[in-house]
Amino acid sequence: MAITGVMRSGLAQIRVLDMEESVKFYTEIVGLNEVCRTDDGRVCLKTYDEFDHHCLTLRQAESAGLDFFGFKVDCDCLLDKIAEDAKAFGQECEFIDANSDQPGFGRRLAVKIPNGHRIDLYADVEISEPHPMLKNPHIWSSRPRGVGARFFDHGLLAGPNSAETVRFFIEVMGLSKVEVVRMPDGNGDIATWLSCNTRLHDVAVLEFPDPGKLHHVAFSLRDWDEIGRAADFMAVNGVVIDAGPTRHAVTRGQTIYFFDPSGNRIETYAADFAYFPDMPVREWDFSELTWGINYYDHDNKIKPSFLGVVT
Amino acid sequence: MAITGVMRSGLAQIRVLDMEESVKFYTEIVGLNEVCRTDDGRVCLKTYDEFDHHCLTLRQAESAGLDFFGFKVDCDCLLDKIAEDAKAFGQECEFIDANSDQPGFGRRLAVKIPNGHRIDLYADVEISEPHPMLKNPHIWSSRPRGVGARFFDHGLLAGPNSAETVRFFIEVMGLSKVEVVRMPDGNGDIATWLSCNTRLHDVAVLEFPDPGKLHHVAFSLRDWDEIGRAADFMAVNGVVIDAGPTRHAVTRGQTIYFFDPSGNRIETYAADFAYFPDMPVREWDFSELTWGINYYDHDNKIKPSFLGVVT
Amino acid sequence: MAITGVMRSGLAQIRVLDMEESVKFYTEIVGLNEVCRTDDGRVCLKTYDEFDHHCLTLRQAESAGLDFFGFKVDCDCLLDKIAEDAKAFGQECEFIDANSDQPGFGRRLAVKIPNGHRIDLYADVEISEPHPMLKNPHIWSSRPRGVGARFFDHGLLAGPNSAETVRFFIEVMGLSKVEVVRMPDGNGDIATWLSCNTRLHDVAVLEFPDPGKLHHVAFSLRDWDEIGRAADFMAVNGVVIDAGPTRHAVTRGQTIYFFDPSGNRIETYAADFAYFPDMPVREWDFSELTWGINYYDHDNKIKPSFLGVVT
Amino acid sequence: MAITGVMRSGLAQIRVLDMEESVKFYTEIVGLNEVCRTDDGRVCLKTYDEFDHHCLTLRQAESAGLDFFGFKVDCDCLLDKIAEDAKAFGQECEFIDANSDQPGFGRRLAVKIPNGHRIDLYADVEISEPHPMLKNPHIWSSRPRGVGARFFDHGLLAGPNSAETVRFFIEVMGLSKVEVVRMPDGNGDIATWLSCNTRLHDVAVLEFPDPGKLHHVAFSLRDWDEIGRAADFMAVNGVVIDAGPTRHAVTRGQTIYFFDPSGNRIETYAADFAYFPDMPVREWDFSELTWGINYYDHDNKIKPSFLGVVT
Repeated sequence: MAITGVMRSGLAQIRVLDMEESVKFYTEIVGLNEVCRTDDGRVCLKTYDEFDHHCLTLRQAESAGLDFFGFKVDCDCLLDKIAEDAKAFGQECEFIDANSDQPGFGRRLAVKIPNGHRIDLYADVEISEPHPMLKNPHIWSSRPRGVGARFFDHGLLAGPNSAETVRFFIEVMGLSKVEVVRMPDGNGDIATWLSCNTRLHDVAVLEFPDPGKLHHVAFSLRDWDEIGRAADFMAVNGVVIDAGPTRHAVTRGQTIYFFDPSGNRIETYAADFAYFPDMPVREWDFSELTWGINYYDHDNKIKPSFLGVVT
Repeated sequence: MAITGVMRSGLAQIRVLDMEESVKFYTEIVGLNEVCRTDDGRVCLKTYDEFDHHCLTLRQAESAGLDFFGFKVDCDCLLDKIAEDAKAFGQECEFIDANSDQPGFGRRLAVKIPNGHRIDLYADVEISEPHPMLKNPHIWSSRPRGVGARFFDHGLLAGPNSAETVRFFIEVMGLSKVEVVRMPDGNGDIATWLSCNTRLHDVAVLEFPDPGKLHHVAFSLRDWDEIGRAADFMAVNGVVIDAGPTRHAVTRGQTIYFFDPSGNRIETYAADFAYFPDMPVREWDFSELTWGINYYDHDNKIKPSFLGVVT
Repeated sequence: MAITGVMRSGLAQIRVLDMEESVKFYTEIVGLNEVCRTDDGRVCLKTYDEFDHHCLTLRQAESAGLDFFGFKVDCDCLLDKIAEDAKAFGQECEFIDANSDQPGFGRRLAVKIPNGHRIDLYADVEISEPHPMLKNPHIWSSRPRGVGARFFDHGLLAGPNSAETVRFFIEVMGLSKVEVVRMPDGNGDIATWLSCNTRLHDVAVLEFPDPGKLHHVAFSLRDWDEIGRAADFMAVNGVVIDAGPTRHAVTRGQTIYFFDPSGNRIETYAADFAYFPDMPVREWDFSELTWGINYYDHDNKIKPSFLGVVT
Repeated sequence: MAITGVMRSGLAQIRVLDMEESVKFYTEIVGLNEVCRTDDGRVCLKTYDEFDHHCLTLRQAESAGLDFFGFKVDCDCLLDKIAEDAKAFGQECEFIDANSDQPGFGRRLAVKIPNGHRIDLYADVEISEPHPMLKNPHIWSSRPRGVGARFFDHGLLAGPNSAETVRFFIEVMGLSKVEVVRMPDGNGDIATWLSCNTRLHDVAVLEFPDPGKLHHVAFSLRDWDEIGRAADFMAVNGVVIDAGPTRHAVTRGQTIYFFDPSGNRIETYAADFAYFPDMPVREWDFSELTWGINYYDHDNKIKPSFLGVVT
């Protein structure tokens, strides 16, 4: 396989304030499918076009936010190697038993990374229904619901120590730096987009004072038409849209940001091109970030909520 | 890098009957940019959104067809390893000096594969203009011309010994089998799609009596709207469309096939999803191939020209 | 009102062979809504975005085809004037009582026109559910089903005496000639597109040996993206597509032709521009009709079934 | 003709501060074609898809704004009738000689309407190049430039005495009321959309303290995809976007508002459906206007500039 090692981001566990309201939101609006519920009441969901057992786990809690963000690797044996490297990098690691808290998943390696987030890595995942057809396949076996999210796409993790965090993703996990926004003073980067495949990002890292904060988790849509239809569907259904539909100049993707009922920011994102790791890094001056975020920006200032609100 | 080894197909040298007519076609219709001409009169072209020096070389000749089909690997050192493995597999190999016949390219390994095609592998490629912007990048530095081909995408190579050819791509080059069409009698595959990244195919292999035949080379477009606009642009300009705009059920891509002035079949292709090598292989019965090729097929038979005409 | 007199085509009664199968097709595939059933077992349907009581009536019969094709006029008083003019033109007329056979419709004037078709004209129509919202309106009150047909759009009526038929539509009903295809010998027109508003056609007339034959009835979709999604939906559901998705060069519309379970040809049509009656007539030579019908035509011949099969 | 009387809005004369900069903007960005220049230095422009001589006249002046807004009627004889009715309504009228100040136009009737705007009516207009092909027509004779504006679409006229102005458009000019926004106190309308064909509006009227103010003039685009491409083109070229790309819930259109170099607000607008005058009026409460204007609104407040800035 030419996609080796860490293959893609593919799992997030998110805290929600009201489980049934949240399940309704993620199934009816985002279009995910409920796969199963755990004994402790968590709910596992997936898109209609994925094979892996689930990509999103909801956990009811007192406050919204992200429990962990996960990556699939191509071989279970790699988990030991990454654990070793992560420890050498100075990070705490822990193995979690297969099927212990994420049904359908083999053992996972949980690593605390420098920005306060927990990253889970895993190799063995069962296939669950629904998944794409395999024999004389139609484009779907059942018409997508809601906005029809296609695939778990990426997360934007806010927290301190961005530089160390980025270094961890590159040196320990083998990701590539795709795009960066320079700090106002030009020293270092305020935000970095990182990929382990042809996505424009599997994960992005935002410098932020508080550790372990979630800016957003994103699901892919196909193109501008799907983005427009998703915005219509959200509008009809009273979803609170935070930004978009618009295009980021950073990563060139087309996007809508919106909030789940607990205030977690979710994105639907349509990539414009395929990244390869031999492409040069694209760089942004902080002063150009306004149109970097909203390419059609007209006020020349970012809404304070967009950068300030995290969970 | 998580995309390692053989990273992508990225270069083809095609024979054309009339150079100036062909250059006009590839620049004004397909939207490629002329990068340079060689001393022996070949012309090197690239899309507006690629970094590599060029992706298509045109060579004037008595008959149309494909001279070789190329893949980029992540490290020059890998070429020696592949040469060794290819020889062990029983294939002839030859190294071609840097900059000898493809300006901007480092040394290449040319391998004769079992279906009579020549595959070139290379690691070092200079960046040429135009390429995507790198500093506070806009979506393009100059508006795309013609149908606005975005990226070299894949080729479909026709010839005998498909099974051996597929085995070569998998065992020696590390590609993954994405999708197959079974032979009418169910023994073996008449066609196989293979990927080394998240494309639905970097190369596809079609069983065909004559060796070294080109079915088509494809350039990517973004989505159904670009496919429709491309079809309009071709129609206005009198391009001979062979099939489409339509969707393949096989690979789920949206497509137009058309002919260059020499009769080489070219495709513009919009992928519908991103492949990963942990996805199961998708299988087609030969009897379903009609709608596998044209999802909106209404006659329930494939145009004989579509499978029969190669160069 | 600046749209006066005959305002639009808006009603067709079609014969089907099996009522329940047909209702299922028109509601689940085309996306119409069942409004009511008549005592004699006919079923009345409408799109989600229309106000008029219904636009399609299905009648079970031994053979498929069209009972009548209807136009809405701006005032009931106009019916008497048209009856008079139609008689003076030499056509038989008959008034049909309000609510007698089309629930929700006022009295209708039925005119036998020279190509053997029956045209019904009516002014008073009740509003039925569902219809577009009127107070702080969302884009729909309930998500469209199937391919989401938006509006009754036009019909193509085949039969003899085209020239007289066209003259009737223009002189008696006030339609405008939008586009014509000349006969092979250049004498007269083999097909004519006629409009009474800004549609590219409310009705088209095709010279054909047998009287009263239906080539197709069309429902509007919005754009190429909806055409593509409709084609996908039809393909997944095994609908027999006759042609498309493609663009007509004649009228410039984007289209899919498909068959209902009884063999009536139905079209989903996306107009590309708005016609006005001060635009000059557009003319086609018969020899160019191939790409006039299928702008992306590659065989340079029309499928015999497309022009030959009517109901 | 079933579109009779006042057929459509089709001409505006706009004041600009710098003629060459403005011509460059309207030709290279909006995609209009320069048709001719007048002796007094005004420049006449048209889209690629119109027949009428021109739809926009630029006049260099000290301040931006609108000189007059014009409608085409179906017969020169109607001008006398409208002059009479306008005088009876209490409005000043004046005839302007053919070809005196608008090349290619027959005599015009200029009427001062209650909101301080001048409306010009005309019937006879020469056809100018470029215009749509008439014989075996391709979709365009020359590829559209810039954002590819397709047709003059509508204007939004701000000023006092809205109620009287609306009454004038309906009673004297025969337009229909399509949609209204109620005043905060529910007494009367703050804005009204009016049509004389199937457009969602040929003209809209906004209550505003100062007479004769232009909110915007709009050109049509086809669909959401064209809106997105237009936004990209504007962004690359540094055009100041005021709002969008988004959807209005009012009229359901998809839109971008932007400023010409003189500060005149211009819109590119894609209609979502065809209006007919037998449709009921759609009504908005003032309190819902935020999402009426921006369907994807997230701040729940309208940008002050959007309603406050006029020329």
